[in-house]
Amino acid sequence: MALKVGKGAEAPPFLVMDVIAAANARQAALPPGAPGVLRMEVGQPGTGAPRGAAEAAIQALRAGTPMGYTEAFGLRSLRERIAGHYREKYGVAVSPARVAVTVGASGAFPLAFLAAFDVGDRVAMAAPFYPPYANILTALGMRPQVLPCDASTRFQPTVAMLDALDPRPAGLIVASPCNPAGTMLGRGELAAIADWCEANGVRLISDEIYHGLSYGTEEATAAGCSGSAIVVNSFSKYFSMTGWRIGWMLLPEDLLRPVECLAQNMVISAPHIAQVAAEAAFGCAEELEANKAVYARNRALLLEAMPGAGFGTLAQAEGAFYLWADVSDRTQDSVGFCARMLAEAGIAATPGVDFDPERGHRFLRFSYCGTEATVRDAIARLRGWR
Amino acid sequence: MALKVGKGAEAPPFLVMDVIAAANARQAALPPGAPGVLRMEVGQPGTGAPRGAAEAAIQALRAGTPMGYTEAFGLRSLRERIAGHYREKYGVAVSPARVAVTVGASGAFPLAFLAAFDVGDRVAMAAPFYPPYANILTALGMRPQVLPCDASTRFQPTVAMLDALDPRPAGLIVASPCNPAGTMLGRGELAAIADWCEANGVRLISDEIYHGLSYGTEEATAAGCSGSAIVVNSFSKYFSMTGWRIGWMLLPEDLLRPVECLAQNMVISAPHIAQVAAEAAFGCAEELEANKAVYARNRALLLEAMPGAGFGTLAQAEGAFYLWADVSDRTQDSVGFCARMLAEAGIAATPGVDFDPERGHRFLRFSYCGTEATVRDAIARLRGWR
Repeated sequence: MALKVGKGAEAPPFLVMDVIAAANARQAALPPGAPGVLRMEVGQPGTGAPRGAAEAAIQALRAGTPMGYTEAFGLRSLRERIAGHYREKYGVAVSPARVAVTVGASGAFPLAFLAAFDVGDRVAMAAPFYPPYANILTALGMRPQVLPCDASTRFQPTVAMLDALDPRPAGLIVASPCNPAGTMLGRGELAAIADWCEANGVRLISDEIYHGLSYGTEEATAAGCSGSAIVVNSFSKYFSMTGWRIGWMLLPEDLLRPVECLAQNMVISAPHIAQVAAEAAFGCAEELEANKAVYARNRALLLEAMPGAGFGTLAQAEGAFYLWADVSDRTQDSVGFCARMLAEAGIAATPGVDFDPERGHRFLRFSYCGTEATVRDAIARLRGWR
Repeated sequence: MALKVGKGAEAPPFLVMDVIAAANARQAALPPGAPGVLRMEVGQPGTGAPRGAAEAAIQALRAGTPMGYTEAFGLRSLRERIAGHYREKYGVAVSPARVAVTVGASGAFPLAFLAAFDVGDRVAMAAPFYPPYANILTALGMRPQVLPCDASTRFQPTVAMLDALDPRPAGLIVASPCNPAGTMLGRGELAAIADWCEANGVRLISDEIYHGLSYGTEEATAAGCSGSAIVVNSFSKYFSMTGWRIGWMLLPEDLLRPVECLAQNMVISAPHIAQVAAEAAFGCAEELEANKAVYARNRALLLEAMPGAGFGTLAQAEGAFYLWADVSDRTQDSVGFCARMLAEAGIAATPGVDFDPERGHRFLRFSYCGTEATVRDAIARLRGWR
């Protein structure tokens, strides 16, 4: 008898994975000595964990630490260190009891969604957006409600847009700096959105995974302006620890026990060794700031050169490590355009449809978290390619 | 305005966590030099990862491996090694393409449930059961359907029980060796259940996390008798790597792409360093068999001594590292009984209500994955405690 497949199985793929596979295939097919594919599609730093973090992991293993389960919300010392980070970086007092260590930011979202929302609930988000927001919601039977945003609001939602929503959604996801646009919400904008959410019974989820990576714009945390928001963050971006799968949430009081119970059942705990390394990563400012300086140089190079290379309409690149390029003057088919750019110029970038199903056919995302040499090479190739 | 909390937030806690906290508190309150609390409540080996696995992690870190994301289903080499394990251990051919590396077995269940089932679907399981099966299903809006099992079927489900189900469930979870009872399904029993599932359009999920830990009884894998079952396994138990958060699934063809898409969105990848360590763990048979020999000795000691210590009705302890004790001749309140045993005898065990809400008030679970000294001490204390 044929077996059913659940509706959750209809979750679309995260398309950048297909781009990565295509870039890998092209690289593998190149003749020896040929110039390689320039990887501007990936959303992860090429650097590994900072040396001090890796050393802490090595020392713990050498010492024979058994690396058993930790408590569901993580090692006490790491939760305290994260709470201290809010005091030091933002001047915001956060109790360690509100810190939940998670399996990356990815592991935070299902816990947050299940604790805060029900099947059928609508959760709003600006488009373009990080695709898993919508895909996870859909897999859980919830409904993404997309707010189409453009350069006029720096691709960020506004209170006016939220006020126009009828019916009210159960939740709102904001991201600043955001992926893919790289734009940010100012402190006043974030506070106004947080106030609107509290006044309207809408649960705010603030994705702050790219905090630490901004270039002159102040980073505001929802922890500083909301007692009911869920803040999501991770060691994957600024701390350069993607594959360690370690992140955290700041939880409001009413969701602490619900999320703890969900985590006990669905996760047990985040990886112990990654928790040890993450705690040490807070002491690696010099190396992490050096990584960031590379992104800052890459960004400056691209912002100067891209208009002359045929990419003249860029979102305001305030943070993260992405350029969101409007390519409607060159194509209405960003998937085909990316494939041609990979084949002809040897540059991999991500077509916008991953991030905005409606309008992404005229946008691309370039990631600049690679080396300066990659970026310089890419600029030179793009100048010679039309 | 008051914010809603989702129904997923009603997931009950995994009660053993409360027992662990009580045991910790009692240990901390003991005067210096007093005999310590004997920990028989925990479901994880006291040993760490095998030395070769930890060494592989250290070497990779020393070599500067960046530890970025892996593919969603894990490192190719690990998937091949896991496939090889099925050939070597069971004589079953498994394609590496069907192996999905997961964040422990815990990380496998939500992916499996979302891919195979829908909101509202019933999924059957024997009681007593591993509590997260039911709690995760409930959090996802699915419905656990409990098959009350007892010593007459070694606490395992039978085809006759399944035949009596009306309506048919969408899925069935089996576990062999099972937690908490430690009993197993023979190869013929498992095959009969798998055949029934195929004939009745019921998706079989076979939890094989305790494979490797049986004491004279043959371990049968659903991979050997079903093309449509999902097999769940982990490096946490036999391989003694709980806190590394690394496990795997064998997926049927029809669920491969659905689970891959879900994993891309909800997980990205399992921890890279744990994948490196896990692959090396397959080469650590000597150390792992030595761990198992400790469990085997502990089990033999307990089976001989427990009847004389007032625990005469034990489930057939074929595998895992648990004794499931019927204590109905001593109490009808296993929670109170466990609290008293902790307070008076200094022994922590888990009350059965965690595993069987209906009948668990007259059962306890003792874990024997600690040291032989702990077990000998516990036996002596239990003999003097009534």
